Amino acid sequence: MKLNPDWVVGFVDGEGCFFVGIQRNPTAKIGFQVIPEFRVVQHKRDLDVLHGLKSFFGFGRVCQNHDDRWEYRVRRLDQLHEIAAFFERHPLKTKKRIDAVKFSDVMALMKEGRHLTEIGLREIARIASLMNAGNRPRLAELLDEDRVQSDVKAPE
Amino acid sequence: MKLNPDWVVGFVDGEGCFFVGIQRNPTAKIGFQVIPEFRVVQHKRDLDVLHGLKSFFGFGRVCQNHDDRWEYRVRRLDQLHEIAAFFERHPLKTKKRIDAVKFSDVMALMKEGRHLTEIGLREIARIASLMNAGNRPRLAELLDEDRVQSDVKAPE
Repeated sequence: MKLNPDWVVGFVDGEGCFFVGIQRNPTAKIGFQVIPEFRVVQHKRDLDVLHGLKSFFGFGRVCQNHDDRWEYRVRRLDQLHEIAAFFERHPLKTKKRIDAVKFSDVMALMKEGRHLTEIGLREIARIASLMNAGNRPRLAELLDEDRVQSDVKAPE
Repeated sequence: MKLNPDWVVGFVDGEGCFFVGIQRNPTAKIGFQVIPEFRVVQHKRDLDVLHGLKSFFGFGRVCQNHDDRWEYRVRRLDQLHEIAAFFERHPLKTKKRIDAVKFSDVMALMKEGRHLTEIGLREIARIASLMNAGNRPRLAELLDEDRVQSDVKAPE
């Protein structure tokens, strides 16, 4: 399936998700791992569109999300930088573009290694909590589950 | 907000809905009214995108769906014919294009006045029941609520 940039922007405006997960990880330097992720979830009937996105960007994975839902997913930092650059060149039309900008902000912090410091992680958690307005309860759950806010000490 | 055709196709692939409602209406010739509708629902934060769609097509209404959800909606038959023609020229990439084709089929039947006959209405109800696969329970509810299947006699 051959896709063009404007279609991809429109589809991601509808179906895309820029997500910054923060997970407890005892092997990580400060006990938490930041996992930025770009994903597009579809019913399995539209698997070919997900593969079309993979071909369009030239990277990423198509894998099962849950049950009949599949996703095109990008997690590798170098590839996420390309995703962020694409949406800088081709801005989203919906308010999701604010998520894309915040996502780029998190990527920039990570590029400087700030996610490996407590202050940097707290800043990333703050930005992440402002993302995915339509999906905030889920993020709040995740933050709560991982106890990022309680475990990372508040600034004095 | 200026939109281009490919973005519109991508966005509708994600967020659009081709819907054929069938409602009981005592003033209609055979007691039921067929209401085909094209709609795109968004959170009110993206009202400007809905107005962008209205400008793009040059017709339709932006109105409240429920609570914080607003919709761009087209119900006028002449305008729906234009919508159908647009998506024939610019096919959807997801399986929603099958809905768009079925929608065009219903429009063609209506153009011939077949929705005013019992046989035609039954055919339209059959096509409508095959649409919106991702949303079938809602359609099933509607059909049940309107008792189309029980009130329109089955063919011998």
